[in-house]
Amino acid sequence: MAMQHTPLLMSRIIDRGATISPHTEIVTATEEGTRRVTYRETRDRSHQLAHALMDSGLQRGDVVGSFMWNGSRHLEMYHATAGTGLVLHTLNTRLSLADLEYIISHAGDKLIVVDADLLPLLEQLKDRIPTVERIIVAAEPGFEDWSTTIPNAMDYEEFIAGKPTNYQWETFDEYSPLGLCYTSGTTGNPKGVEYEHRAQYLHTLTIGLTDSMNLSSTDCMCLIVPMFHAMGWGLPWAALMLGCKQVLPHRFMQPERVAQLMADEGVTVSAGVPTIWQGLQAAIQQNPGKLDLSKLSRLTCGGSAPPASMIEWYWKELGVEIIQGWGMTEMSPLGTLARRVGKYEHLDFSDEKRLANGAKTGLVMPGLELDIFDEDFNPLPHDGESVGEICVRGPWICSEYFNNPHPDRFRDNWLFTGDVGVIDEEEYVIVADRSKDLVKSGGEWISSVDLENEICGVEGVAQACVVAQPHPRWGERPVALVILATDADVSQEAILEHCSEKFAKWQLPDEVLYVDEIPLTSTGKLDKKTVRASLNSDGYQLPDLRVA
Amino acid sequence: MAMQHTPLLMSRIIDRGATISPHTEIVTATEEGTRRVTYRETRDRSHQLAHALMDSGLQRGDVVGSFMWNGSRHLEMYHATAGTGLVLHTLNTRLSLADLEYIISHAGDKLIVVDADLLPLLEQLKDRIPTVERIIVAAEPGFEDWSTTIPNAMDYEEFIAGKPTNYQWETFDEYSPLGLCYTSGTTGNPKGVEYEHRAQYLHTLTIGLTDSMNLSSTDCMCLIVPMFHAMGWGLPWAALMLGCKQVLPHRFMQPERVAQLMADEGVTVSAGVPTIWQGLQAAIQQNPGKLDLSKLSRLTCGGSAPPASMIEWYWKELGVEIIQGWGMTEMSPLGTLARRVGKYEHLDFSDEKRLANGAKTGLVMPGLELDIFDEDFNPLPHDGESVGEICVRGPWICSEYFNNPHPDRFRDNWLFTGDVGVIDEEEYVIVADRSKDLVKSGGEWISSVDLENEICGVEGVAQACVVAQPHPRWGERPVALVILATDADVSQEAILEHCSEKFAKWQLPDEVLYVDEIPLTSTGKLDKKTVRASLNSDGYQLPDLRVA
Repeated sequence: MAMQHTPLLMSRIIDRGATISPHTEIVTATEEGTRRVTYRETRDRSHQLAHALMDSGLQRGDVVGSFMWNGSRHLEMYHATAGTGLVLHTLNTRLSLADLEYIISHAGDKLIVVDADLLPLLEQLKDRIPTVERIIVAAEPGFEDWSTTIPNAMDYEEFIAGKPTNYQWETFDEYSPLGLCYTSGTTGNPKGVEYEHRAQYLHTLTIGLTDSMNLSSTDCMCLIVPMFHAMGWGLPWAALMLGCKQVLPHRFMQPERVAQLMADEGVTVSAGVPTIWQGLQAAIQQNPGKLDLSKLSRLTCGGSAPPASMIEWYWKELGVEIIQGWGMTEMSPLGTLARRVGKYEHLDFSDEKRLANGAKTGLVMPGLELDIFDEDFNPLPHDGESVGEICVRGPWICSEYFNNPHPDRFRDNWLFTGDVGVIDEEEYVIVADRSKDLVKSGGEWISSVDLENEICGVEGVAQACVVAQPHPRWGERPVALVILATDADVSQEAILEHCSEKFAKWQLPDEVLYVDEIPLTSTGKLDKKTVRASLNSDGYQLPDLRVA
Repeated sequence: MAMQHTPLLMSRIIDRGATISPHTEIVTATEEGTRRVTYRETRDRSHQLAHALMDSGLQRGDVVGSFMWNGSRHLEMYHATAGTGLVLHTLNTRLSLADLEYIISHAGDKLIVVDADLLPLLEQLKDRIPTVERIIVAAEPGFEDWSTTIPNAMDYEEFIAGKPTNYQWETFDEYSPLGLCYTSGTTGNPKGVEYEHRAQYLHTLTIGLTDSMNLSSTDCMCLIVPMFHAMGWGLPWAALMLGCKQVLPHRFMQPERVAQLMADEGVTVSAGVPTIWQGLQAAIQQNPGKLDLSKLSRLTCGGSAPPASMIEWYWKELGVEIIQGWGMTEMSPLGTLARRVGKYEHLDFSDEKRLANGAKTGLVMPGLELDIFDEDFNPLPHDGESVGEICVRGPWICSEYFNNPHPDRFRDNWLFTGDVGVIDEEEYVIVADRSKDLVKSGGEWISSVDLENEICGVEGVAQACVVAQPHPRWGERPVALVILATDADVSQEAILEHCSEKFAKWQLPDEVLYVDEIPLTSTGKLDKKTVRASLNSDGYQLPDLRVA
């Protein structure tokens, strides 16, 4: 042994922010305004929480659930469980009761910390989650007088009160579990991904690279992506390591509120799904000159591909770089990021070409392998044209689901992501679609995502969703659901005309359906499965199949 | 197993730069100008070199020496040995022949690649290094006609010619050795530090953090620190991972030449010891308006503490941040870095306070533990006043010397660094001195480094070196050796007057000795051991001890 074989445990990095930046604030949005604590206070409270959890009889490796919004107490849960070797199971607040029941029981949660405003949801499960021995209730201002019929519930503040503010983190195997997150599967039961210390440690370093999100201790980070979704994209860990200012919106996700919060707190970087940034864009446009977002420099955007028109708007109007990211729960989650200037050779690029870079899915993160394969598992050329399933492997990629291996998703350590796309000659990945959302018309593939993003570029269109509909001759044909902006009036002809600049005639949607709402999944993506089911139950027929 | 347990081998990251940035250049300085190759060419040649090395009968784990300047072929040696699992022993070109003989034999080098201009040095050892079976000669322009009496020597180009350009890197244990570097010990034989794959992998990610050196693929990096010194501070690995442009000065280290090279190539970031930046400063001052260094933004500075006056000059004159780093061969080498704005709380700092930040030794890197201890191994308070020995531990800190454990340097995994200093309330480390260079006068410590940096702030002083001299009453008293700038005339009174603004009278040097040269160690630091020995052999006496 020549070098120290220090295990890569999260406890080695999570106290660092509070050590170097004790007075920096962690701001949580509340009904009335904000609740503000410093890093040192939060660290001390996390150590108290660690004592409280272990004193309550839990043992290293036990699973603890969090049913919480993004807030400082949720961050304390990350901190305390990571330090003690408990496993944090982040419960998605938007899941159905049936799915919640399933995942709580499948994971075997022994204790759940719940935000008081979410108690009524949990209450409905009280007799259906027998592994749960105890409920701890975190009450933000206005919810201090919570009550519940769930037995053995205790207030979070009472739970940690009087505990010592220094827990001596123990050393254990770096492959020990750290977290559990279930994917909102579209078929069958949700599948669990178990995160390990070493994997998240490496992931944390990676998202702190200059060429990644360029995170710094001098950032003010607003975490919009829920902390229950793929460990908040790893950003809570990075923040704890770096000691940057944090702004957490809790349940107050209305675009105007988020925009105001970001302006008030001087946010420099934020992370969320495209629909969030579309909402923020509208809020900014509707309040001209009222929001000072001059400190904002980067918006990391994942979950699905952001429309190029939106990327362009943020850059040209605000000088804000939308950093497109791609990954998934099974990937911890980060796989690729697309920067405007992604490599030395791009320094000479025009603004237009830089915009085009940003609209790609991105370059693979250091340490991961990524490739595209055909149906016979042959690697395909990186020519920007060959479409194949994207596979990844590396130290923070899932190797099996939690107590539910699904070997069909893995081969030679490659994770089959279910996304299809190309890799171009610049080594940029460009995801075409989820394989199940591609439209197969006359034997050729049409990307629903590409169509949606093109339609969103039409002035007056607020949101678009393209799904396949069955056709006896072509197999499938695309149909577009469109939400128009307030007072806008955009004809189907105008939309198709716009799209025909980029798409062949046979690739255009057969019909544009104007709607007021498009269902979203629990992670804020377009819920195409529900859209297809609704069209089906409504008896929708493609125009050329309708009885005259 | 929930996550893939991919071993952290350098082969996972070293091909990435060439993959994403194939056309970016690696520029090596030559007698006549520059030699330019692309990342793709270099990658291909590295894979050819890997084949050549393994075809020559070497086996994974064998030690291969490089006796080379910073150039693209040295980078190929890094690349090829890391991929194949050979161990790269970087030989310091400035070592004495006796030390070279010792370390080559102690490490058991089986093959050495040598730059042709260094052949005459190696030639003198030819009968004294029996483990070496073969010499490969890398010839830059002007040296193609090298010849040697060393048997079994072959030209580098001939060695790799015709080999396949794709070597399938193998998978092996991440704790396998990667490199060997011997410290230029001041007493006894040099001590070897064996770098392991996992340690350097983590170190590479760490130096790529925004809050570290802020390295990016869009940088143009000029590596001044020798690649034979602590793996070139890890920067070759980071560059191979990121694909940034590289500028390598080879043996052409004259300040004017380096300055011109940096201007010509558009260098954005560089790394070296303080004497290099003092030389560069002089070259810039002597050529007003002639050097366009407008792209330069950061100079990482390690080896010893840079004078505050120099840090200020670079910032005020060029807008260049000197990033002071601290570490050592035993630390892979990075321990701390000092940024002007090192944390969120510094955003409100004045320029003056930012300058003061930069003049400290720095904040510890994520993943390392660092503390100061008294002589009984009790941790000392972080109050900016308690002086103790700095100890570090973590995944890229040495746990023993190569085949020469030296247990006195290690305890509970802490490396005793031999540096003494304080930690202030901001958690900044401030190194006072090497413990052996501190001056102990009347029972109190005086920092030779602090005195030197203060003296360097006097207009007209080019370099200063403070050493202890024995005194019957006080134990030791400080004496300053000073090199003046050309045509400058600075009196001892002026120097002491300047220093007395910051130092108490009893801390001032007893005498200022004006010299033309101060000896440097093989890594470019002030060689105080030799200075003390010279004073001794010259029969130097402190002023108040001289016979009238």
